[in-house]
Amino acid sequence: MTNETLHHCRQELHHHLTTELLPFWTARTADHVHGGFITHFDEHGHDSGEDEKSLIAQTRSIYTYASAHRAGYGSGELADLARHGVDYLLNRMWDHEHGGFYWMTNRQGEVTNDQKIVYGQSFAIYCLSEYTLATGDQRGVEYAQKVFDLLQKYGADTCYGGYFEMFDRDWTLKGPGAAGGNRKTLDAHMHLMEAFTTLYECTRQPIHRRKLLEVISLLVGKVMHPVYGTGVPQFWADWRVAPQIKFDVIWGWDRFTEDGAKEAAEDNTSYGHNAEFAWLLLHALSILEIPHETYFSQLQKAFSHAADNGVDWEFGGVFVEGSHSGKVYDREKEFWQQAEVLIGFLDAYRIFGEEKYWRAYENVHRFVMDKMVNRPVGEWWPLMTRKGVPIWTHMSHSWKINYHTVRSMVQSIRRLDMLLEKDTVRD
Amino acid sequence: MTNETLHHCRQELHHHLTTELLPFWTARTADHVHGGFITHFDEHGHDSGEDEKSLIAQTRSIYTYASAHRAGYGSGELADLARHGVDYLLNRMWDHEHGGFYWMTNRQGEVTNDQKIVYGQSFAIYCLSEYTLATGDQRGVEYAQKVFDLLQKYGADTCYGGYFEMFDRDWTLKGPGAAGGNRKTLDAHMHLMEAFTTLYECTRQPIHRRKLLEVISLLVGKVMHPVYGTGVPQFWADWRVAPQIKFDVIWGWDRFTEDGAKEAAEDNTSYGHNAEFAWLLLHALSILEIPHETYFSQLQKAFSHAADNGVDWEFGGVFVEGSHSGKVYDREKEFWQQAEVLIGFLDAYRIFGEEKYWRAYENVHRFVMDKMVNRPVGEWWPLMTRKGVPIWTHMSHSWKINYHTVRSMVQSIRRLDMLLEKDTVRD
Repeated sequence: MTNETLHHCRQELHHHLTTELLPFWTARTADHVHGGFITHFDEHGHDSGEDEKSLIAQTRSIYTYASAHRAGYGSGELADLARHGVDYLLNRMWDHEHGGFYWMTNRQGEVTNDQKIVYGQSFAIYCLSEYTLATGDQRGVEYAQKVFDLLQKYGADTCYGGYFEMFDRDWTLKGPGAAGGNRKTLDAHMHLMEAFTTLYECTRQPIHRRKLLEVISLLVGKVMHPVYGTGVPQFWADWRVAPQIKFDVIWGWDRFTEDGAKEAAEDNTSYGHNAEFAWLLLHALSILEIPHETYFSQLQKAFSHAADNGVDWEFGGVFVEGSHSGKVYDREKEFWQQAEVLIGFLDAYRIFGEEKYWRAYENVHRFVMDKMVNRPVGEWWPLMTRKGVPIWTHMSHSWKINYHTVRSMVQSIRRLDMLLEKDTVRD
Repeated sequence: MTNETLHHCRQELHHHLTTELLPFWTARTADHVHGGFITHFDEHGHDSGEDEKSLIAQTRSIYTYASAHRAGYGSGELADLARHGVDYLLNRMWDHEHGGFYWMTNRQGEVTNDQKIVYGQSFAIYCLSEYTLATGDQRGVEYAQKVFDLLQKYGADTCYGGYFEMFDRDWTLKGPGAAGGNRKTLDAHMHLMEAFTTLYECTRQPIHRRKLLEVISLLVGKVMHPVYGTGVPQFWADWRVAPQIKFDVIWGWDRFTEDGAKEAAEDNTSYGHNAEFAWLLLHALSILEIPHETYFSQLQKAFSHAADNGVDWEFGGVFVEGSHSGKVYDREKEFWQQAEVLIGFLDAYRIFGEEKYWRAYENVHRFVMDKMVNRPVGEWWPLMTRKGVPIWTHMSHSWKINYHTVRSMVQSIRRLDMLLEKDTVRD
């Protein structure tokens, strides 16, 4: 792969980010009446009217604007937008009695679901730390630390390690079954790693470093498959693998059978999650100043499982899910997996230098640029057929916002720049 | 065993407690110059002058006076003594900058060891909760909860479960080896169960209940021997059994070989600890309102290991330590094991109704009353030969105070009363 190819890819991503993706959001997301963000848009970019503001969509939006500002995009308006979101988050979604952020309000800011869901709290830590890093406003890290402390007190399982994930408003652990109180997930623990990384980057406090190291050990030692190094989605409290079910409170639009189970409920892994896990781990190690060689085998397994099994060489892009040993179960193309493998494959190519990762990157890059971007409006289709025909058509809702898409562009550009620099040094 | 025997035993303990043991302490322990308690006395009950006030001795003293007051002893002076101790603890031993209690001051109240040791923090929770239960003074439970919260944030190991135990002043985890930062112990976790039980009794907060349940699961599932149900003293962070070593910061006068190891470092269990664990578990279940049948097998194993292997039928009393399978290693007689098995054997007899437990109780009861009490002064000898000749002769120092002896009398009398009531009901 030549310098020219790298340049061309970078150019394409940068153009998409700065002239399509970010403008889509800055033009329409701020709610100037009730504060916070409007996060429901149809395929034409029109407000689709759902009367909800979810913790996930608000915090992910804050992260998007704060991180893009910190990466040098915009001329201050993205920091303003992040601040606008933080105001709403702290004024409307913080529980002054029990601590932590509520799960859902309506557009006016009235609480419609007061539960404390760790997945959402982790994004609060992530976005508020990023916000302070981007703007210097200390409110961010102050509340990020409050949530961190609450998770240590109420979230942590002091018997088996890790964190429980589903709590009532007063942090009482929810019951079993679909309420989810007796399960632990890859998803929440991976996002806690992501959140603690940025919290530690912001505070440099030893306790934030220690808890980040503990969650990394947990992910590598218990959550990832012992043979394949791939992500196992759900566990019982004691870390025995649990069949993957749909929870009462969802944070994504995963597809389940009608009885709320996955078809391959006990042998199912997500190519996108595995690549995301690996690049987030690499990033955490970099913030911790730990050599990535420490987790060489883990990184290689996660990246290569996605590159060797998840890439669609016929129609482009990355598949949704498959077996730990590789076999593909779901050949559709979802937006966030494409976003995450772009960063992941570039990191894998950067670290291991194997051409297969560059080819995998280029494949998904083309699929995203040619098929996934809804060009007339600038955001990505949420779900497409294998061949690239839209199945779902919303541009945004509570579980699809700009975090994956914008972060993918910002982080992929950064990695392409690293590769170009390396190349320059080599020349 | 007859009602008359029960009455006689009760009478003997009550006489010892009220005319010897408690008077020993109320006559000499309050430091009216510098506050807190003087806790170093020789065999004659004279102040032996060591210039230290340890967190363990101060908190255990508070527990002793508060619990004896709550059990109906004295006419208010024990509550006053407890308050006198709490004043010192909060004014001199609390770290206003980092939270938690310091490990050691001198008699004047100057900090001489500022480390945060979980073993000591657990006794702070225990005594401060007991103090509020006994007196209604809310300062106790307020600080107990502060320590509980600190343990959740800094103590808990969110990778493998349980608590790390050895921290620097700012709650940074200490290093490996004799510093102890990479080990976990039966001792600390058993005392956390004890502390969380009384904290929950005091607050009835769901989070205190949950953390108590978690530490019980941990003790039963990981700390006690999988076959024999006996206590394993030390573990690595991931709960693999670690050879038992002496730590830099000690909280007792365990005997080690010169290189700081136990002679049977990997197959060693304490009869006294096992009986103490089992009665503390029974008590926790009672506070939690969980039927003791839930842990029937665990309780039976721990009690019967002590009764079947630990009792010296020739010279009386209970031995120090032995193998998990039963064989005795150390035939000397230490004060605290006698104290704990008295309560434990009465509980075992009460629950299981087997005569062997009554015979074991009666054996140790006689050894204590006839040999272990230093009659001229009223406290117990710390360590005796197998036959009952004193080896160590101090009545008190930083690691031997009144917690085991007074609690043993208060709790044994309570259990003898229960047996008498049961008998009355039967008649």
